[in-house]
Parts: sequence; C-alpha cells; structure tokens
Amino acid sequence: MTKPAVDFWFDFASTYSYLAAARIRTLAADMKVAITFRPFLLGPIFKTQGWDTSPFNLYPAKGRYMWRDLERQCADQGLPLKRPDPFPQHSVLAARVALIGLGQDWGDDFCVNVFRAQFGEGRSISEPATLAAVLADLNVVAEPVLAAAQADDNKARLRTQTEDAARYNIFGAPSFTTSDGELFWGNDRLEQALAWARRLG
Amino acid sequence: MTKPAVDFWFDFASTYSYLAAARIRTLAADMKVAITFRPFLLGPIFKTQGWDTSPFNLYPAKGRYMWRDLERQCADQGLPLKRPDPFPQHSVLAARVALIGLGQDWGDDFCVNVFRAQFGEGRSISEPATLAAVLADLNVVAEPVLAAAQADDNKARLRTQTEDAARYNIFGAPSFTTSDGELFWGNDRLEQALAWARRLG
Repeated sequence: MTKPAVDFWFDFASTYSYLAAARIRTLAADMKVAITFRPFLLGPIFKTQGWDTSPFNLYPAKGRYMWRDLERQCADQGLPLKRPDPFPQHSVLAARVALIGLGQDWGDDFCVNVFRAQFGEGRSISEPATLAAVLADLNVVAEPVLAAAQADDNKARLRTQTEDAARYNIFGAPSFTTSDGELFWGNDRLEQALAWARRLG
Repeated sequence: MTKPAVDFWFDFASTYSYLAAARIRTLAADMKVAITFRPFLLGPIFKTQGWDTSPFNLYPAKGRYMWRDLERQCADQGLPLKRPDPFPQHSVLAARVALIGLGQDWGDDFCVNVFRAQFGEGRSISEPATLAAVLADLNVVAEPVLAAAQADDNKARLRTQTEDAARYNIFGAPSFTTSDGELFWGNDRLEQALAWARRLG
C-alpha cells in the first residue's frame, strides 16, 4: 500500500491558492497524505477560454466579491491580507524559481512564503529582489538560483508543467488531483481531495 | 433583539442552488436563523457580463468539472442526481409560480421540490405540466396559481426581485445576504452566511 498522495496545482498570482498553500501542509500531515506542490501558469489556460487577464478583473462584480470573500476567509484562517498592486502579479519568475526549489529541499517553504509575501504583505513577486529576499530568509543563495530559474531547460519545465495541468482539465487554481485522475477545484475542496486520496491509498 | 435572518437568492436553473435548497432549512433551524427564499433570474445578470447562457456551457472545462463536482457533492449530501436536458432549463415560469407560493404558505416547499424534480429526477421545469405536478403534490390547485403567476403584476414582481439581486451585487447563485448587506456566494458559503447573521442578531 502506497501513501495517499495529492498533487497541489497553483499559480502564484491566484488569491485562493494563498489560502490553500497556508493550510495544506498541516491538513495533509494530519490526514497522512503526501502533497506534491505543482506551480503552473494560468495565463495560457485562461487564453484558451478567451480571457487575457484574471476573470476577477474581467467581471467586476465577481472581482469585488472575491476581495471581500478573501478578507473573510483570511480572518477565519488567521492570515494577514494586503492586496498587491497590480493584480494579478506576473507569476512566471516565481514559478520558475519554485521549480528549482522543488528539485532541492526548499521548494514547499518557498512557495508558501512567496504567497505570504504577495498577499500577506502586498509585495511585488514579479521583482527578482522580492524573490531573492524570500530565498535569503530560507538561507538559499539567490543569485545562482535565479540564473538557473531563467535557463532554457527550466523554462521548458514550467511549460511542461502547464501542459500537464491542461491535460488534467485544470481551468483554475488552486486545483487538486489524485492518482486516479480525479480533479478538485478551489480551496473549499481541499479537505475533500485529501479524503479522496485516503480512500484510494 | 430580532431573530437572525438570511435571504437565500437562487435561480431555479442553478445546479448548486439545488444543493443549497436541499439543506438550508435544516441548517437554519439548527442555528435559529430565519430564511427568506428569493428566486430571481440569472439571465439578465449574466447578460450584463456578456454571457448569453450559463458559464458552464460557455466554458466547457468548467462545465465538465461542475457536473463531476455536483455528482460528488450530491453523493455526500445523499441527494439524487439526474441531469436535465437541456441545461440550463428555462426557469422563468417556476420563479413566477414560486413568488405566488411565497405570498402564501407553500412557497418554500415548492422551491425545494422544483429543484428536486429538475436535478434529482431530470424533469423539465419549463413545462407547466411539471410545475402542476409539483403543486398537486403539495395539495395546491395548479390552474389558478399558474394563471396568477403569468399575470402582469406577478411578472413585474419577478423583474423587481431580479433588480434587487443586482443591487446586492449578486452575480451568481446561490447567494446569501444578511441585513448589513454582506454577500455570500455559493453553497460552500451557506454555513458562513448563517453564522454571520447570528453575530448580527
């Protein structure tokens, strides 16, 4: 019997992925489910739906609601919230750096901390200096990591990861998948995804 | 101190409103919150967002996901699920009849039963015969009710109800509002809406 496992798919620009990232490790540990962090880019997926930016910007009523809902959810989870400007942030560099870290031992921490820097502190994650500061907090020397992140082979890995997301029919973030191909969308489905994985395990 | 209260906004064509309608009365009774059922039409609201049908039809990946998610949610809630064809159903007649019932004493039961006929049994709620059968089950004589539903004053009431929904910035269904103007969207936010109302009460 293998340990139950869930893949956690997110774009760093996604507000509800901040909520999921902040709680997934504790929840998964409690339920004895292994989590694989899988950053990808929503942009190419949104494009296939005809969107050139976040639906929260395209549909103002939905966007206003999202920010208010996020305030309430952050309050319930005890998380800080400071809206980054602009929204959405360009997330490609953060995702590339995350892939480097996920091949080493600091990837999950980096992801959680990038979300917190962006949505908890309102910092700009498109700026290399912000990512370098997050790396420094983890005692990772930033310069070689940022260089490796921007190398062609790593850029290709992020494209592949995004293609994998599309193959799972992922259309938003956060999403969760299990080994039988089941898809769960949204922070609100995290518990259900973990429970599903346990039933398979 | 007044009793805590929540307005429950829904379009009869909305799949997730089926889930909410099936459980809202029990949950609200447990939490001692008064519920007002408020049917409205999503169509005019979707039109202001540039949509001429359900977003679940406009965005196929989202639509496929919704039906699978609905299966899982129905299984968890112990609800039957049979997909109506076509989807979405024309919901205007059901909403007009509901408004008549909500002015009498059979409105809430009618709403819950129309959802169940449509999504639990796959019946066509755009057909007067289906609504007449639901009314008969409630021992309501259908013919005068269907006539009153289609009278000009009642049609105007449904338009007003839909304008009220827009004024609350409602953009989807189900939605829940409280007396301080707070908006909660989605079956997943029902518990939070009830708790919010209690804090105000």
